[in-house]
Amino acid sequence: MMKVLVLNCGSSSIKYQLINMNTEAVLAIGLVEKVGMTGSFLKHEKESGEKVLFEGEILDHTAGIEYVLGVLTSEKHGCIKDLNEIDAVGHRVVHGGERFNSSVFITDEVVEEMQKCIDLAPLHNPPNLKGIEAVSALIPDVPQCGVFDTAFHQTMPEHSYMYAIPHKLYEKYGIRRYGFHGTSHRYVSERACEILGLDYRNSKLITCHLGNGGSIAAIQNGESIDTSMGFTPVEGLMMGTRCGDLDVGAVTYIMEKEQIGVRSFNTLANKHSGLLGVSGVSSDGRDIRKAAQEGNHNAKLARQMFNYRVKKYIGSYVAAMGGVDAIIFTGGIGENSVDQREDICKDFGFLGCKVDSKKNDVYGEEAIFSTDDSTVTLIVVPTNEELVIARDTIEIIKNR
Amino acid sequence: MMKVLVLNCGSSSIKYQLINMNTEAVLAIGLVEKVGMTGSFLKHEKESGEKVLFEGEILDHTAGIEYVLGVLTSEKHGCIKDLNEIDAVGHRVVHGGERFNSSVFITDEVVEEMQKCIDLAPLHNPPNLKGIEAVSALIPDVPQCGVFDTAFHQTMPEHSYMYAIPHKLYEKYGIRRYGFHGTSHRYVSERACEILGLDYRNSKLITCHLGNGGSIAAIQNGESIDTSMGFTPVEGLMMGTRCGDLDVGAVTYIMEKEQIGVRSFNTLANKHSGLLGVSGVSSDGRDIRKAAQEGNHNAKLARQMFNYRVKKYIGSYVAAMGGVDAIIFTGGIGENSVDQREDICKDFGFLGCKVDSKKNDVYGEEAIFSTDDSTVTLIVVPTNEELVIARDTIEIIKNR
Repeated sequence: MMKVLVLNCGSSSIKYQLINMNTEAVLAIGLVEKVGMTGSFLKHEKESGEKVLFEGEILDHTAGIEYVLGVLTSEKHGCIKDLNEIDAVGHRVVHGGERFNSSVFITDEVVEEMQKCIDLAPLHNPPNLKGIEAVSALIPDVPQCGVFDTAFHQTMPEHSYMYAIPHKLYEKYGIRRYGFHGTSHRYVSERACEILGLDYRNSKLITCHLGNGGSIAAIQNGESIDTSMGFTPVEGLMMGTRCGDLDVGAVTYIMEKEQIGVRSFNTLANKHSGLLGVSGVSSDGRDIRKAAQEGNHNAKLARQMFNYRVKKYIGSYVAAMGGVDAIIFTGGIGENSVDQREDICKDFGFLGCKVDSKKNDVYGEEAIFSTDDSTVTLIVVPTNEELVIARDTIEIIKNR
Repeated sequence: MMKVLVLNCGSSSIKYQLINMNTEAVLAIGLVEKVGMTGSFLKHEKESGEKVLFEGEILDHTAGIEYVLGVLTSEKHGCIKDLNEIDAVGHRVVHGGERFNSSVFITDEVVEEMQKCIDLAPLHNPPNLKGIEAVSALIPDVPQCGVFDTAFHQTMPEHSYMYAIPHKLYEKYGIRRYGFHGTSHRYVSERACEILGLDYRNSKLITCHLGNGGSIAAIQNGESIDTSMGFTPVEGLMMGTRCGDLDVGAVTYIMEKEQIGVRSFNTLANKHSGLLGVSGVSSDGRDIRKAAQEGNHNAKLARQMFNYRVKKYIGSYVAAMGGVDAIIFTGGIGENSVDQREDICKDFGFLGCKVDSKKNDVYGEEAIFSTDDSTVTLIVVPTNEELVIARDTIEIIKNR
């Protein structure tokens, strides 16, 4: 039985899953929160559904991963007897720049290359690298692989990924569209084709990953040809707290009027905007729906703006591909917000696309929600990035 | 015979046309350049096509307009005998904010309101106001009207014009999408309906104003419901020297890396980006086409990016309106770049829309270029903003 540990290390958190790759069953799932802060804790859940919470000082990622490995092998809460049962570790890595267009076996050279991408994702790549270092220190004989959030989008053609700014800014700093959520867009697009019996290599798909962060991708013949997140994850859709698309003339106007610099503006655009900024209520779609139902105008507006922008992106990607076979919804909002899916898709009649409101009444499960005679299939596919990371990891290990 | 003088005052230029409103014939057309600079001159053309150039010191807008009035009434080059033959003056005004949703008769109160909009268009509104003042001083009895570039787009619904930033930024500074080129979008959309026998109040139109500056609008039932320029004219399409849509995360990244402030960034985004920035060749589509034909990679790329972005905007507006009856091209590129029109429209087969390449071989004249069986009509309509300004002016004067 092959077992893969999947790690997703954030600046102060470590998410993990141990997956049995023979059955693809999740043997354990959990997360460490507040790494390096007071009040750190570890939440752990076994395959049986049994949950346990540990509180204690977790000073850094190495201590956190040591803790995770301890729980996984503990007699009481664990699911393996010995660490050597872990056949490989797969890491989520946010930014692979232009250097990584697929998942990789991690060597010293690869780590060096990943360090070169830090400048592109100064908040995200360092903790990813810390996780890799910690595993190297704790279980040095276990092979590790890196799966990049950007890799799937490296197939974008130049006219999609270049910005209309002086070319030297691309040459000097690599400023271009990279896109994110690649693992999710890849998973749900492949899975949709399996479910629908479509040929992935001969299909036009639009994947809408709508969560607290959100992005849309146009996937033609199995390759991402465009996506809404760009150089950073702030571009594109309206998100929980991110502004998405915004006139750059408004950026400089705000900075000048509010007398704020680059950092404060980034905080404004990333933490105080989006659904939160417009609604003034919350960044959480459920709170906003409630407020909207209670008559809050700005909450209603936030939902309308969100849906309208998704609708426009879908339209632009239909144009980019010259048509679409299926539109796929995933992420917290995409999987669970029935009324938003309906609102986004209800006016695509011009494409011969029709929502079946009854079928659309589903939450967090795979379901087609277009009518039988719809020429475009609408489908919900819950995402599973960890499974993709584990599969890629096994694939790479096997083929070495 | 009613005659209207149309004035378009820029920071250092004054464009004018004298129009006979009985026939809508242009009696004279011209421009003053380099107002307040060395080397100022006035170019004047009569209805007959006879052209004349005057060089001389033109210190300010009042002097410039005085010069224009002198030429219009001159025995040798003029077309009227006396200034009292001018029945009204119509001014192009760039920014009307939320205060002006249609053209207005200019009174002291209106001028005050227009002054309040200066903050939104610090480069454009002041010269517009100078033109109004100059006319008041020179021919005080002639009624004046203001026609706003933003007014046509004031019908946009809230979910189109609001940005996903904290709501207080809208309240404090009026940061929202205003849109520009409104007079052009209005003219070509109305004219297209006339030509096509469509009911303007019951139609779905997309107008592509593609010039050195460019914007697209979605016009549903005679009202602009969305447009690509936003708070400023830098948003939206890739333009001659403007970047159009760009990740705001890239804005702050560039400012930080290049150690530049708000003003330098605005110069970069407005003057050094777009077709010029990407191609490295020129901001003029004709130069870029030539370079592309000669094999210049970045010139080719600039054209591909330009076309691709127009195509995506069209797609997004089709989605916004749930369909489209006609797509209208205007502006220097829209009216004259045959291959770009073809490239932009050739993949709209999914809409039942087909380009007729033979019919598309037209330059700067009204022409349908879709096939007879195309379900969406593609049409070129040369814009005529001055005529709209003159018509609005007469309409307002008559109804007072």
